[in-house]
Amino acid sequence: MKVTFSAPGKITIFGEHAVVYGRPAIVGSIDKRIYVTMERRNDNCIKILAEDLSFKGLSIKIGDRIEVEANDRILEALKYIVKAIEIASEYINEKSGMNISISSEMPVGAGLGTSAAITVATLAAYSYILGHELSLNEIAKLGHTVELTVQGIASPMDTTISTFGGLIYLMPNVGFEQLSLNNELDLILGHVKRDESTAKMVKKVREIKERNEKIIEMIMSSIGAIAEEGKWAIIKGDVEKLGLLMNINHGLLESLGVSTKLINDMVYASRNVGAIGAKLTGAGGGGCIIALCPGRKKEVSLAIKLVGGNPMDFKLSMEGLKRHNTQLL
Amino acid sequence: MKVTFSAPGKITIFGEHAVVYGRPAIVGSIDKRIYVTMERRNDNCIKILAEDLSFKGLSIKIGDRIEVEANDRILEALKYIVKAIEIASEYINEKSGMNISISSEMPVGAGLGTSAAITVATLAAYSYILGHELSLNEIAKLGHTVELTVQGIASPMDTTISTFGGLIYLMPNVGFEQLSLNNELDLILGHVKRDESTAKMVKKVREIKERNEKIIEMIMSSIGAIAEEGKWAIIKGDVEKLGLLMNINHGLLESLGVSTKLINDMVYASRNVGAIGAKLTGAGGGGCIIALCPGRKKEVSLAIKLVGGNPMDFKLSMEGLKRHNTQLL
Repeated sequence: MKVTFSAPGKITIFGEHAVVYGRPAIVGSIDKRIYVTMERRNDNCIKILAEDLSFKGLSIKIGDRIEVEANDRILEALKYIVKAIEIASEYINEKSGMNISISSEMPVGAGLGTSAAITVATLAAYSYILGHELSLNEIAKLGHTVELTVQGIASPMDTTISTFGGLIYLMPNVGFEQLSLNNELDLILGHVKRDESTAKMVKKVREIKERNEKIIEMIMSSIGAIAEEGKWAIIKGDVEKLGLLMNINHGLLESLGVSTKLINDMVYASRNVGAIGAKLTGAGGGGCIIALCPGRKKEVSLAIKLVGGNPMDFKLSMEGLKRHNTQLL
Repeated sequence: MKVTFSAPGKITIFGEHAVVYGRPAIVGSIDKRIYVTMERRNDNCIKILAEDLSFKGLSIKIGDRIEVEANDRILEALKYIVKAIEIASEYINEKSGMNISISSEMPVGAGLGTSAAITVATLAAYSYILGHELSLNEIAKLGHTVELTVQGIASPMDTTISTFGGLIYLMPNVGFEQLSLNNELDLILGHVKRDESTAKMVKKVREIKERNEKIIEMIMSSIGAIAEEGKWAIIKGDVEKLGLLMNINHGLLESLGVSTKLINDMVYASRNVGAIGAKLTGAGGGGCIIALCPGRKKEVSLAIKLVGGNPMDFKLSMEGLKRHNTQLL
């Protein structure tokens, strides 16, 4: 038996980093997905094939506990697969060897929530193939546990959005609200190599905050206010305002020390050819920017390319976790 | 009779733009000066020679009112000279034609307070040569009037610092406090062409603020908090903290939309070779950055050059307005 689950990546439109400190954020799932295909094996061996994620095939034997040493950003993704299998096994109280193949329509580890997408798709596929069709709520909850275990600290944001899909206004420790877009937004992603992991960037901000508690608290509140106003800009379809808020948010991320020269190059290049808003998206230290560029997608893509980034056309998409016919892959 | 007065330029270490909205700022006069030499003429003609400021010599006849049309950033500087002469004439109730020559040790109109330096040196030289030795308080006050008249809106900050010199913590509408440095700071200026005048940048921020009142107020308060903590970092000689606060302040200026691609290039290039803090200084839209780079001045200068900026070694200097022996020029 063979099954494929896919889950979407996400962009943070407003509020990355500040959400860690209790401020609201706006995140949306996108039309770029991670696909996890599983086939049950007759032995106890987990074999992972994931050339698209730029790591070679890897075999892991399941003992009482699965352990992977991962010092490297690419092995990082594997941690989530292994931990998801471990946690799913415990939850459904069954285990089996699997051939797992993974492919991605977006760069992995670039701040697009790929670890959450890998996690929820793995949880769903593994339990499904062993006869347990978990509910979305169960998967989102287990997914958060996986991220918590791997990262030490994690908001439920990424796993929630990757499981349910949508465009949400998230208020940490309170709940989230689905927003709806009246018109499709012209958006372009720009991607550059990431130097640092999300965990490291979160730690960097924590250190800056500890040294400048009052100032950074004020900046976090400013980012929170942007997310609040951004919600209304989305509801009203005020694209100009949305762009301006993105630009302001980018500066605040810069003040937290999470932007880089290459990220700024992409931001300025995009604005220069007509993006009305451009900002880092995700934890930073490299990774991705999003540019809001009504009618100027081609120009912005080219501009991003010219400064050394990889442009990617994308849309917000409401589709969350999904099971595919096995013919798909 | 011939006399030369000089007045220093200044850097804003913390708080540009936010000071317009009542937040504290820290500014320091520097060891780069503007020199204004005057020689009384027998007629009513004001002849200005200022090749160093990159404008050609210019003759103006004093009528009942001096008027100069200045649409251009270079003619901009002339407005201050003409207005300073007009206001000094009224104040001392005397007037005369003059040959005026002006030279500058720093780029003009780049956010270094050159218009204030030109203003106070002109006021002092003009009144001195006509037999009136104005007090520093009188000159600072008249200087502010000149800036107000020319710009429409102006804080007394630049004219105060250029007249008295020093390193001051300024609380608008309250007063200012002289700070003292325990150790000399290793600082480098980086200069690029400026696209916009201070007045235009102040207007730009005003417009963004009107559209996002709550958010921008919070950002202004964050900048104010940086100036407050920066004061203590200066008093304690905590250079590391000073650098970190500069970096945070730069991000906040970025969020106000006053930075540019070239400014950011210089900021990142400086940090990349060891500056512990780098930020835009002044109103932005191009102009100058300051980089705090203990023991790394050569490397930072080179890095600024490599991204197309003009590096300039400078020091904070306590020396304000000063009369020179005429032999000087």
